[in-house]
Amino acid sequence: MNQDYIKADNWSIIEEGFDAERVKSSESLFSIGNGAMGQRANFEEYYSGKTFQGSYIAGIYYPDKTKVGWWKNGYPEYFAKVLNAPNWIGIDIEINNEVFDLAKCKTVANFKRELNMKEGIYYRSFSATLQNGLEISVKVTRFLSLDIDELGVINFEITPLNGDAKIVYKPYIDAGVHNEDANWEEKFWEPLNVQHSNNEAFVTARTFKTHFTATTFMQNTILLNGSNVNASPINIEKNNEKVQFSYEINVAKEQTATIQKLGGYTVSLNHENTQVAAQNVIAEGLKIGYTNLKENQIQAWAKIWEMSDITINGDVKAQQGIRFNIFQLNQTYLGKDSRLNIGPKGFTGEKYGGSTYWDTEAYCIPFYMATKDQQVARNLLTYRYNQLDKAIENAGKLGFKNGAALYPMVTMNGEECHNEWEITFEEIHRNGAIAFAIFNYHRFTGDYSYIPEKGLEVLIGIARFWHQRATYSTYRNQYVILGVTGPNEYENNVNNNFYTNYLAKWCIDYAVEQINKVEKEYTSDYSRIMSKVNLDNAEIAHWKAVADNMYFPYSKEHDVYLQQDGFLDKELVKVHDLDKSQRPINQKWSWDRILRSPYIKQADTLQGFYFFEDHFTKEQLEKHFDFYEPFTVHESSLSPCVHSIQAATLDRMEQAYTFYLRTSRLDLDDYNKEVEEGCHITSMAGTWMSIVEGFGGMRVKNDTLHFEPKIPSQWQGYSFKINFRNQILKVEVQQNETKFSLEGNKEITVFVNGKEVLVEPNSLVTV
Amino acid sequence: MNQDYIKADNWSIIEEGFDAERVKSSESLFSIGNGAMGQRANFEEYYSGKTFQGSYIAGIYYPDKTKVGWWKNGYPEYFAKVLNAPNWIGIDIEINNEVFDLAKCKTVANFKRELNMKEGIYYRSFSATLQNGLEISVKVTRFLSLDIDELGVINFEITPLNGDAKIVYKPYIDAGVHNEDANWEEKFWEPLNVQHSNNEAFVTARTFKTHFTATTFMQNTILLNGSNVNASPINIEKNNEKVQFSYEINVAKEQTATIQKLGGYTVSLNHENTQVAAQNVIAEGLKIGYTNLKENQIQAWAKIWEMSDITINGDVKAQQGIRFNIFQLNQTYLGKDSRLNIGPKGFTGEKYGGSTYWDTEAYCIPFYMATKDQQVARNLLTYRYNQLDKAIENAGKLGFKNGAALYPMVTMNGEECHNEWEITFEEIHRNGAIAFAIFNYHRFTGDYSYIPEKGLEVLIGIARFWHQRATYSTYRNQYVILGVTGPNEYENNVNNNFYTNYLAKWCIDYAVEQINKVEKEYTSDYSRIMSKVNLDNAEIAHWKAVADNMYFPYSKEHDVYLQQDGFLDKELVKVHDLDKSQRPINQKWSWDRILRSPYIKQADTLQGFYFFEDHFTKEQLEKHFDFYEPFTVHESSLSPCVHSIQAATLDRMEQAYTFYLRTSRLDLDDYNKEVEEGCHITSMAGTWMSIVEGFGGMRVKNDTLHFEPKIPSQWQGYSFKINFRNQILKVEVQQNETKFSLEGNKEITVFVNGKEVLVEPNSLVTV
Repeated sequence: MNQDYIKADNWSIIEEGFDAERVKSSESLFSIGNGAMGQRANFEEYYSGKTFQGSYIAGIYYPDKTKVGWWKNGYPEYFAKVLNAPNWIGIDIEINNEVFDLAKCKTVANFKRELNMKEGIYYRSFSATLQNGLEISVKVTRFLSLDIDELGVINFEITPLNGDAKIVYKPYIDAGVHNEDANWEEKFWEPLNVQHSNNEAFVTARTFKTHFTATTFMQNTILLNGSNVNASPINIEKNNEKVQFSYEINVAKEQTATIQKLGGYTVSLNHENTQVAAQNVIAEGLKIGYTNLKENQIQAWAKIWEMSDITINGDVKAQQGIRFNIFQLNQTYLGKDSRLNIGPKGFTGEKYGGSTYWDTEAYCIPFYMATKDQQVARNLLTYRYNQLDKAIENAGKLGFKNGAALYPMVTMNGEECHNEWEITFEEIHRNGAIAFAIFNYHRFTGDYSYIPEKGLEVLIGIARFWHQRATYSTYRNQYVILGVTGPNEYENNVNNNFYTNYLAKWCIDYAVEQINKVEKEYTSDYSRIMSKVNLDNAEIAHWKAVADNMYFPYSKEHDVYLQQDGFLDKELVKVHDLDKSQRPINQKWSWDRILRSPYIKQADTLQGFYFFEDHFTKEQLEKHFDFYEPFTVHESSLSPCVHSIQAATLDRMEQAYTFYLRTSRLDLDDYNKEVEEGCHITSMAGTWMSIVEGFGGMRVKNDTLHFEPKIPSQWQGYSFKINFRNQILKVEVQQNETKFSLEGNKEITVFVNGKEVLVEPNSLVTV
Repeated sequence: MNQDYIKADNWSIIEEGFDAERVKSSESLFSIGNGAMGQRANFEEYYSGKTFQGSYIAGIYYPDKTKVGWWKNGYPEYFAKVLNAPNWIGIDIEINNEVFDLAKCKTVANFKRELNMKEGIYYRSFSATLQNGLEISVKVTRFLSLDIDELGVINFEITPLNGDAKIVYKPYIDAGVHNEDANWEEKFWEPLNVQHSNNEAFVTARTFKTHFTATTFMQNTILLNGSNVNASPINIEKNNEKVQFSYEINVAKEQTATIQKLGGYTVSLNHENTQVAAQNVIAEGLKIGYTNLKENQIQAWAKIWEMSDITINGDVKAQQGIRFNIFQLNQTYLGKDSRLNIGPKGFTGEKYGGSTYWDTEAYCIPFYMATKDQQVARNLLTYRYNQLDKAIENAGKLGFKNGAALYPMVTMNGEECHNEWEITFEEIHRNGAIAFAIFNYHRFTGDYSYIPEKGLEVLIGIARFWHQRATYSTYRNQYVILGVTGPNEYENNVNNNFYTNYLAKWCIDYAVEQINKVEKEYTSDYSRIMSKVNLDNAEIAHWKAVADNMYFPYSKEHDVYLQQDGFLDKELVKVHDLDKSQRPINQKWSWDRILRSPYIKQADTLQGFYFFEDHFTKEQLEKHFDFYEPFTVHESSLSPCVHSIQAATLDRMEQAYTFYLRTSRLDLDDYNKEVEEGCHITSMAGTWMSIVEGFGGMRVKNDTLHFEPKIPSQWQGYSFKINFRNQILKVEVQQNETKFSLEGNKEITVFVNGKEVLVEPNSLVTV
């Protein structure tokens, strides 16, 4: 736990004091991104201490050769790794002939990092005494432009405090980088070309195998006390992958020498000629100028916050937590490009590889759907539609036929790139989340057009998979689903996971409903799709047989659905009664012990109750929550949010609040002692859900918004906005009342605790 | 399948004709060994074609750093690999200045390999036309001395047929070898010292990490037409790991130039100073001389065959098969050294690593017990006793306490060195086989002394493990064993595998019985052990609670025990109805598909019926055989033998014969298309059991031998010998009668088909 290390603040993430042991954690927490690229908060200058260097470009990946101990049939040959991109931020510094290195200074004082989330700008400042006795004050400002998303900006100021100084700024760009997460220590980038002229430089490199080309660029301006001195490099070093300029500037005591570095990437995903594109980006950046770039950045973030902010009054840590989550989600994905998706670590690290997990459909889409234009969610759905052929191929590798689709557990381009049989081959519930997201999109946006245009083909591929994957048990005279891993990855290769079976049945039922609806209402789409997928009524009847006769494990004694067959055979000792020294079990116990224990990594049966709340009574939810929650260890980042929502639904506000804090400050407080590897991005959308769906009780039923507002006793009030079908509804919940107001042009009716409430444009309704 | 490639012959394995594609397979099949070392049938001379070079020393291994995709808690850091030892057989050859290379000859004719199993000698001969037009005839003889088990002998003869020749023999020894099976392509040997004098040379090298030192040595003698020409090297090349001599000899047409090379290894397991030891071995070898060494070899093998041969009349392929199995078992392990064990590939390859699996206890001990002095089986038991502390440590790593022992799945020195969670952590039935072997040893030999001296401590550690590993299911009000892999590795992480549960119960019951017996009859051993293991009656009562109340999955409908919970949920399509194109499923199907199928890799429930035949009626055996055999794909080498025995027990002789052929000729006919990786050594003991226990129906009950002789219709007769309590009983079965005769000094009573028969020394009894 990192608790109290990050200063509580409503709008900023703040670290005070330099602690070499915290550098890697802070590099994760202070990461910046603009949807198109992002980077860890590495120092610009040389640093000899422990660091994890990382800069990432959306959509650019590397298929690393798979590493396994024992090969299993069906494993992919390659694993798409999040690819550390060339370094554009680097600025080596020499001061009075000493290499400036924070790890080597005599003293470092007033060290402060501030990630100003309101502005989308990362600040760092400190004073230091060098080995040579010179005291300096340093201020660094860095941001990745939202407006020009190929451009990053650094303003690096040094002021000598106790003497004059000769400062050499040595900015560089370097494609000679390696991945922390590499299976075989191979190089992933092949340098192609290094060019420079005046104060600009370009390193063009290409990924091996995938052949993405990226031009990394920089442009440097030197200022003295804020005025451009029109400096040129006094020296240029280059090799085939790196170029470094040296600028020398003599500064009198208490004067300030500044380097402004523009940098970034232009890539072959977006440009024919990446170097020309880079030149254009530099030209545009220079035309706007540093001050305006910074001002524009603040404006652009203001626009994002205008829509997506959640305010919490009376609880600074809770406020900081939710804003950190919303900020990171927006840094990671802005929804402009349907080729992109939301990686589990965003731009903050490399772990896990791949950019797309079922997290997108189960956790992220609700956030983007409610805080952005609905096109964003549609882009996320389209991403999967575009990968349908690969999902069919993937299913084919596992022996499925006739257009059955199995979406991969982890992917960059639609191909499976995970290799652990119990997950890769068996955590098939992911397929259901993809169908559920289509349903959820339509439920929320009312936009049915996606289904006849694209979604129905996906639903058919998924229904085919479930039909083929189910087994008819003559013994039970029902269909069973054998050998799966549910969302609770602390069980492997189990039979009849309730969540999976329930979702499978629902997927088939939903697909059949949509086929019937499209047949009636979208005749030409229907003909096009049916001739493409070659589906007939006989096949649909076979699907229905599976859905209508699916087996669900159930305990009469406890009156609950069982997580899987045999769950009751376990030694049912509650987490509460487990010795604390045994936690977290994923660090303390061998894998077999975890597997035969009753402990649940993340919501599993309860995930089903979350998706299909309407299918069950509140009493059923309560019974299942009371049965499963005591065995849940929440060792997945995706767990506390679902429990927070359900605790709130069950009016257990203290529990809901505890889960909320855990989900919202997971990384800030480093609950799992692993934040130095990067932040948990996708679960951050779960934090948003905890407030809006949990405390706010927001649901969409019959094309109408419903709320059951609740508020933790610790808070004075909270507010959020929902983009509901192109009207923006603001909800402000206080201890005794809830206020609704509307930015839009036509009234809407919402239900508050079951009571109809009319909200008219630009007027406040208090309930 | 390799069928008909190896010529049918009663006593030899014969290959005729040179086929470069078969070289690696033949290298496995023609391997030689003497229990202390062994090697693949690699050519002595340089060969540029595809080859798998391998020479191995018993007890010398390397802990290779584990390679996994996704680390699981509990995995060992290192995996003990079968270690390719330095090369001592190498003899490069130049003939009229051309490097002789079978892959480059213009023609190769009359190529023949013969592994004469009666003699224990490997012969190779051929004629060839070199690129330079010279025709030569070559004869090579090689063997590893049984009498001097550190010594190998090569006699290499070349006769030019169509002209005179200058022949340069360039024998070498070389520690610069690598393992085919290496996780990280690292070097495993560190060269220490290279020495030579006269015609002798020594390369001393040490394994990294384990620090085994081995001196590899050679001594060379050159002969012309059979007479020693007292040649000295004309050239000596050496570096820090290799030394190579050159001998030049001019040979007239049709004269014969021979090199006799003595070589081998002396190792720090057996000697303080390995080089001095090597010098002694050479001196002894030279003293005896080539002709006598060869003669002694034939005599030594005759002694082995005298006791362990099985004859089969009227079926050459069946005869060749069983002799190949007996021969390979004796090449691999002779039982002299309790530090050694029986690796799954013996000295024929590296695959799987480790030298000790449960194969030893379940399959090999019966063979060694009946064909060797009983000390050999006792040595194999002692091997596990000596590793008890490591087994307790191993259990500790998985969370078990208080002296519970879990023997490793794979080991060299007692430490677990396998890393696949579903096997390493869950294939725990192996522990039961180790207890069963103690019971079986006592049953067969009548030697109880092993139990108070050593065995009881092992039984206690194992009983403690099962007690702790079982879980009390309040739901069933019985003990269950969750999350295991049975002998059928096509199921992973199942609950209540019948075989495992049954064995666990038996282990506890048997341990308690032995504790009680030792308490009464071996008081001082009892006190010693009890104070060492700190066991009291309360603990024993806890064990008994588990054993007395163990749950076994059972189907009323089928009246069979179920392989595991949920087996009946599977789609029960019999192997017979499976499309042939889908076989073998381990090559054609993805792992998840195999897991959810009903297909059984090897006897599982039936393995339990094999161990505990007496606990069940013949009707029960028949019911279970009929239920499980149709789902068994026999994709493990350990499967057909058990089925052959049970088919014979059930009087299904055609089926028993088919299984017998499959087990006995598994490698010769290359059923699994993998013999080039090495032979399946441990399953060869199963072949022996198929005849003796299957066809012969041999059992030991109440200290007496029982037989129910049967004979396949394809055979005229077969015979085998049994060392039963230091008397040798010979059994000859013919279509209509069985003859018994005894080498020993006191009569014994046996039961034949339930009828008492008295066999007196040196007289033949016909039944």
